[in-house]
Amino acid sequence: MKKAKKSTRKPRTSSTSASRIALKDTIARKIVRKKKTAELKHLSWDQVETEEVTPLLYRQLIIGEQVMLARLLLKKGCVVPWHSHVNEQLSSIFEGALKFWIDEKEIVVRAGEVLTIPPNMPHKAEALEDTFAIDTFHPPRADWINKTDKYLRK
Amino acid sequence: MKKAKKSTRKPRTSSTSASRIALKDTIARKIVRKKKTAELKHLSWDQVETEEVTPLLYRQLIIGEQVMLARLLLKKGCVVPWHSHVNEQLSSIFEGALKFWIDEKEIVVRAGEVLTIPPNMPHKAEALEDTFAIDTFHPPRADWINKTDKYLRK
Repeated sequence: MKKAKKSTRKPRTSSTSASRIALKDTIARKIVRKKKTAELKHLSWDQVETEEVTPLLYRQLIIGEQVMLARLLLKKGCVVPWHSHVNEQLSSIFEGALKFWIDEKEIVVRAGEVLTIPPNMPHKAEALEDTFAIDTFHPPRADWINKTDKYLRK
Repeated sequence: MKKAKKSTRKPRTSSTSASRIALKDTIARKIVRKKKTAELKHLSWDQVETEEVTPLLYRQLIIGEQVMLARLLLKKGCVVPWHSHVNEQLSSIFEGALKFWIDEKEIVVRAGEVLTIPPNMPHKAEALEDTFAIDTFHPPRADWINKTDKYLRK
């Protein structure tokens, strides 16, 4: 019987585990970059995968080359904590009401309304009712695609 | 009485009129460039100006820095002739049905569906029913903002 080779692997310390996560993230980014070539696609929202980000937040993505649509269901009471991103965001509300804290203002965006959010402008939001929204982002949000959006999952 | 100065202006020939149009276009582009700075805006579609492009085509624009939303009503029979543009386009249909001729295919996009159109891909469309759509463009379409989109106005 062959003697089992002694493992030369280092024990998994927190620093190697951090570097593994970083490597995973790099690979994910590469996949996203590869997917970025523009494509003609005919999609139905009904067939696009729905991700349960939290029990109060459901998300679907249609990813273009430089633009991404995110169709969101935010159940009443869903809070999107303070965050900001380099991506320009246009939030279109189709049903319900979403309250934003942004630029030292409180803004309630209702069905039939749109909020345009410049890149890097910190904001927080709360669903005052069950809310259907489509967020448009430029460029597509790598953290939503890679599911590295920890601020949403607390 | 002061003698009227003899005009030194050249008579308006077709070439000077062409250069005037070019100058106007340059000024319009500069205005659009100036408007491109990202801004926090809270808008209601009900309050956004509606342009009657033709009796079969009505259009509203919400213009961000790098992304533009165009809310369209295409009445049954409205034809958008063959054209292409450098802008990436995501066409979201909310009511009705829009038939596209694109990439040697015929694709009918219905309510709840999205067509992603890469930059520079020629396409034509026809509304099979009264259709509400929101087109997302990156970057914003200067020809729609400046109303130099003659292909739509034939």
